This record gives sequence, C-alpha cells and structure tokens, in this order.
Amino acid sequence: MSDRVHINEVAPRDGLQMESCFVPTADKVAFVDALSDCGFATLEVSAFVSAKAIPALADAETVLGQIRRRAGVRYSALVPNRRGLERALESRVDEVNLVMSSSEAHNQANLRMSRATSEALLLELIAQANAAGVAAQVSLSTAFGCPFEGAVAHEEVLRLAARMRAGGAAGITLCDTTGMADPASVRRLLRRAADVLPLENITLHLHDTRGLALANALAGYEAGVTRFDGSCAGLGGCPYAPGASGNVGSEALAHLFRSMGVETGVDLDRLLDIARQVPDLVKRELPNPLLRAGPLRAPTKQLPDGDKQHGQHIDRSPARAGR
Amino acid sequence: MSDRVHINEVAPRDGLQMESCFVPTADKVAFVDALSDCGFATLEVSAFVSAKAIPALADAETVLGQIRRRAGVRYSALVPNRRGLERALESRVDEVNLVMSSSEAHNQANLRMSRATSEALLLELIAQANAAGVAAQVSLSTAFGCPFEGAVAHEEVLRLAARMRAGGAAGITLCDTTGMADPASVRRLLRRAADVLPLENITLHLHDTRGLALANALAGYEAGVTRFDGSCAGLGGCPYAPGASGNVGSEALAHLFRSMGVETGVDLDRLLDIARQVPDLVKRELPNPLLRAGPLRAPTKQLPDGDKQHGQHIDRSPARAGR
Repeated sequence: MSDRVHINEVAPRDGLQMESCFVPTADKVAFVDALSDCGFATLEVSAFVSAKAIPALADAETVLGQIRRRAGVRYSALVPNRRGLERALESRVDEVNLVMSSSEAHNQANLRMSRATSEALLLELIAQANAAGVAAQVSLSTAFGCPFEGAVAHEEVLRLAARMRAGGAAGITLCDTTGMADPASVRRLLRRAADVLPLENITLHLHDTRGLALANALAGYEAGVTRFDGSCAGLGGCPYAPGASGNVGSEALAHLFRSMGVETGVDLDRLLDIARQVPDLVKRELPNPLLRAGPLRAPTKQLPDGDKQHGQHIDRSPARAGR
Repeated sequence: MSDRVHINEVAPRDGLQMESCFVPTADKVAFVDALSDCGFATLEVSAFVSAKAIPALADAETVLGQIRRRAGVRYSALVPNRRGLERALESRVDEVNLVMSSSEAHNQANLRMSRATSEALLLELIAQANAAGVAAQVSLSTAFGCPFEGAVAHEEVLRLAARMRAGGAAGITLCDTTGMADPASVRRLLRRAADVLPLENITLHLHDTRGLALANALAGYEAGVTRFDGSCAGLGGCPYAPGASGNVGSEALAHLFRSMGVETGVDLDRLLDIARQVPDLVKRELPNPLLRAGPLRAPTKQLPDGDKQHGQHIDRSPARAGR
C-alpha cells in the first residue's frame, strides 16, 4: 500500500453550492486562501454555472480573481457547458472538473440530458480544455449506485471512464453521490477499474450519508487508490436530509490517513482550525465528532486532574464507580 | 475473509450505565427483550456493581430475573469483584464479563487498584465462574492506547490476554476505550494476537470517538476477527464530551457488514426500529446518520416525484441547477 495519498479540497465549490445563505465573496476568498495553506493537492474553488441557477456561486470570476494562488496547489472549478469552460479558462483555472452520471436516470434528473448527450459534450469540453493547456478531470456520479436505478453496472462506469480517458481526461473521479458504496463494492469496482486506467488517475469522491465513508476510503486505499476528494467540515450535506452528512470531511480523511502513518501533505491542525470556523461561515451547525473529541495526538505522560486532557476524553469504563 | 461475523449488544449495560437518568426497570426489560429478537450472539444485560456507585444499574437482579431469555442468545453481565460474581451466578447469567486495563495508569484511575491486583482477582473470578459452569470473557481496556500513558505496548496487551486465556477465559475483548485505535494499529495488534490465541476468541470493542470505528472494524474483519461489540444507537457516549460518540452503534456495525454481504445474523430493520426509540428511553438526542438517511436497501425503479425516496436522499449534484 502506498505511503502517500493526495486529498482534494472541494468545500468552496461542492460545499458552498448547497448552502442556502450566500457566503460573501470576501469570506469565500479568505476561506480558499486559508485552505491553500493546508497542503491539499487540488482545491476546487467554484463553479462556472448560471448565477440564476446557483446563486451561491454567482461570484465565481471574482473569487478566482481574488484568491492567492499558492505554488504547488492546483486550483480547479466545475464546468457544466461550453460557456462555463470559456469563463473558467478566462479565470485561469489549472483544471476543470466535468460531471456526468453513470446512470441514465440520474443524468436526466441532474443534468436534464441523456448520458449520450453528456458524453459527447464532455468529450468536446475535454478537447477544448486540453487545447488551452488545461487539464480536465471527469467526475462520474452514481458510480456506486443510483438512487433511481439502484445498482449501476460496473461495465457502464468503466466504459465511460475509458471513453473519457481516451478523450483526454487527466483523471476520473468515481463519485458515491448518495452514499450507496460499501467497502466490498469499492473493492470490486476498483479491481476492474485498474484494467481500464492506472489507479493513480482515479480519485474517490465519497459521501458519508450512512456513516460508511471512512471505511470506504480505507477499502479504496487498500485497493490502491491514492486520491480522495474531501470537503472541509463535511460541507455539502444534502439539504433535504437534515443532520445527514454528505461529503466526507477532508479533515476526517486527513485524520484517518495520518493515524495510519500515511502521508497526506495536509496540515491537520491547521485544517481543523478552519473547519471549526465553518459553522460561522455558513450560519449553521455541522456535527463533527473529530472536532468535538480532538484528533489522535501524542498524549502526555502525567495523569490529568480531571476527565479531559488535551482533547482526549477519558471514557470512564464500566467498573470504575463500582469499585 | 469470513462470510459470518457475530455482534454482541452491550447497550443495556455499557450504554445505560452512562446515562444520568434512571431508566425504569420495566423499560430496561422491554429494551432487552426487544434486542433479544434482533439476532445478536450475546447480550450484555447489566452489571453487578454497587448500587451506590452506579445507581443506573441498581436493578441488575430484577432485570435479569424479568427478561425473556431467547434460545441461542447468551445473556451476560459485567462483574467487577467476588460479590458481583456471586450475584451474577445467582441471576443465572450465561457469561460474565470481567474488566481490567492494559495500562497501569488507566487501571489505577478506573479500578483503583494495580494491574497486578486486577490480574490476580480476574484469574480467581474466571476460575470460580468456570467452576459454576459459566463462561468468563475478559475485556482489556486501553488495548489500543491509554489517555494517560499514550501508546500501550502490544507485549503488555498480549501478555494479559495470554494469561487470562491460560486461566480459563473463554475469550478476550480488546477495547479501544477512548477511541485511540486506527486501522493500521488494529491490524498490527491482531497480527500478533493471532500468535497468542485463536482470532475467533477475540472480540473487538470499538469506540467511535473520532469517527474511526467502522474503518477500524473493517480492518479488524480483514485481519480475521469475527466478533464485535456494539451498542444500540451508539449508547454509551462519554458524557464528558457532549455530542462525541462513544461505543460504535450495533446498527452501524450490522449495516457495514450487511452492505458487504457478510452475514451477522442481525435483523437490521428491527434493530433500527429499536435504535429509533432509544432517545425516548434515555431522554436525550443521539446523533445517528444511519437513522437519518436510512440504510442501504434495494431501490425502486421508478423516478421519484421529489427529492426523497424510501429514505434515500438524492444529493443534487453540482451542475443540476446549472443546466
């Protein structure tokens, strides 16, 4: 297993697009700038979509224009169509993120077009991006199951991945859009995906809808994947399921890998400081056990006075008061 | 990897002991009886501790006397000392659960005695239980780290496990008392534990303090463990860390393994119905993404009207409104 993984931070786009409140442009820029110093491989900054459709990201150009670009970080944006690509290129993104679904019904529901149309459009956008010297990442939604169709045939996912790869996509992101993956299905799909493209060009985009995201990340890592999307503080939870989390937290991923001694490049303490401020940014609570309990850290030797010590809570075990 | 695992339900003891409210005896009996029908291997019903020390479990005898014992389920209780063992045997438990810590400082803090004293006491209790025809399980707290001492030497954990096993313990439970385990440390300890006793006699007792419990369970399963403690609805969270979870939910474990096609014997839907009622039982909220989002299930074919369908929430993906 690899001793190095890469985490992509998607909160400024995938997270904020879901929020009902408009986060002021200056706050977005500060958020991205803070995340730039955390050691992420890629930072998805915004989406070049219609301002009418997603008012939360209406300031994509301004944000991309005002952020501080740190060397070594790739700044990407989501692009849904030709106009979006033009805008993204004008804003000098390092990478565009193109999206379609692995299942027909989800593509229709989400993108209002057939997969065949999406396929042709994405191939065109990949070619145009590449012609402009910009890498294109293709995200395949519902790769681990579709809320409408149920199981999605691996053949379909891999056919699309191979097609996009042949068309010039730099990498493929396999998305568990509604949290339907499990460790066994992650393993099965990746085993076959390795025949289609190198595993280092595959990114896993996991949702923690049912609490399985970190177990799925572990299974993906064990299967050879080294790239993972995460969203600071788990931003991007489905707004239709109050309290249910959506995107796996980038800090949760960084913590998982750090705990195992796998290098992520991410400064976890810095990231946790940012994650702690996210509720203020979006004006709502975000449940986060890692922030509450504190990460694993080197403990001190001396006995604490009380029941808390450096964020590590002592769970009184059963017999204590019984003695 | 095994296609069958066993889950032990510990909520009536390990969960309820932590609650500040006294759950009425009749409610406890109804809780245990409901759990008896879920397919668990073992049900930890109560603790024979001093009523003054743990008033929440002062009714251990009455609960053990009134529950309906279902064939095939082992009913166990925690026993801290000789008096507790006598009471447990009088109450006809199938198994006693004995506890000590892997680390000296935690044993002192939790049990108010040295590990050497605990060791001798436990060996005596094991022998007495076995003489009465009752199995003894030994739980080793802080097996994956101690909040006071930090890392705990595997040698110490394994020395204690071997000693207890040689003394007649039916099985050893390795406890991640304060959520300090990670998938790599789980793997490392189990690899060595397999040299000391058969992996089928090892149970993992995991806490989800920092969100790693299911990833750790997966690592344990992959390493060959087939027995896991879980607590319905995650009861047993450390009361000193509001919102932080403690024991991993038995429903979360059952869901993880079911999702992977691994048989647990647990009727997940029935268990979720019980978990849903736990907040009423203990008069407080318990965050539970699985209850909120619903488990993975066979989806229907038709498109839904809205954004929800049978508990599976469609996560609008990025481009949707952008088209």
